[in-house]
Amino acid sequence: MKLIIAIVHDEDAHALVKQLTQADFGVTKLASTGGFLKSGNTTLIIGTPKERVESALAIIEKTSQTRKEITTTTSLLGDNSVMGMPLEITVGGATVFVVDVEKYIKM
Amino acid sequence: MKLIIAIVHDEDAHALVKQLTQADFGVTKLASTGGFLKSGNTTLIIGTPKERVESALAIIEKTSQTRKEITTTTSLLGDNSVMGMPLEITVGGATVFVVDVEKYIKM
Amino acid sequence: MKLIIAIVHDEDAHALVKQLTQADFGVTKLASTGGFLKSGNTTLIIGTPKERVESALAIIEKTSQTRKEITTTTSLLGDNSVMGMPLEITVGGATVFVVDVEKYIKM
Ligand code: NI
Ligand code: NI
Ligand code: NI
Repeated sequence: MKLIIAIVHDEDAHALVKQLTQADFGVTKLASTGGFLKSGNTTLIIGTPKERVESALAIIEKTSQTRKEITTTTSLLGDNSVMGMPLEITVGGATVFVVDVEKYIKM
Repeated sequence: MKLIIAIVHDEDAHALVKQLTQADFGVTKLASTGGFLKSGNTTLIIGTPKERVESALAIIEKTSQTRKEITTTTSLLGDNSVMGMPLEITVGGATVFVVDVEKYIKM
Repeated sequence: MKLIIAIVHDEDAHALVKQLTQADFGVTKLASTGGFLKSGNTTLIIGTPKERVESALAIIEKTSQTRKEITTTTSLLGDNSVMGMPLEITVGGATVFVVDVEKYIKM
């Protein structure tokens, strides 16, 4: 048995919990925040037989990995019209630790 | 030294923390929620010498294990009287992981 | 790779997260409370290469260890004057677990 501790961004957490649950992983969600100047992280605890670790990691990677997104910033111009500017931002990302479990009990 | 991570139902958490503390275990309570469609879980972190792991597990089992309870549902009848119906529900349950600790420091 | 789980008092958490982040440690902050009759703890999760464990522990010790502080209690006297009495209290303290990480992934 292994314990996967995954720290993901809040905006990815809901979809990730759903996908992991659909794939029959037991997931527990802890509220968390990142370190200094970062905010909005969620920590997930996933218990899994060691044969399924790679499968869980693949789901986490698919749902949470760092990716580029185009957002639009708006600027107010001198004539009071608004100009939209496309801006590429990086979203997502996950930090994942796999830890060995000596004993696992479901009561 | 071992680390016990116990995910229990909210309604069992208070009694469990009390019993573990009375038995001299150091307990830290993290807020958590279950996965998809589940809610109301509490995650406890318990640090313990390996000789006392079984004793901690026994307390968790006694306090949190799955059990049947009889609750009463009430239905409003046609004549505006209320009928109570006994209903057996399953409550409690715990998921427990025991992890080895390489180094333990109390500062 | 190692995982450091540090349970510290709330009043030390902010400075500790700041110092660890400045020293380039990745820190995740979980809300937590202590056991029975204790409150106001914060749990930090720190992932670090094993070569830097001692350096992280030194920062935790410097920022969070148990120390004496002088506070002042005030008593209302019979003539409605107030008397201040110095009182030595113990603040801080940390419980720290170091756990081995089998696999670490930054996505
Ligand atoms: Ni990020
Ligand atoms: Ni349950
Ligand atoms: Ni303390």
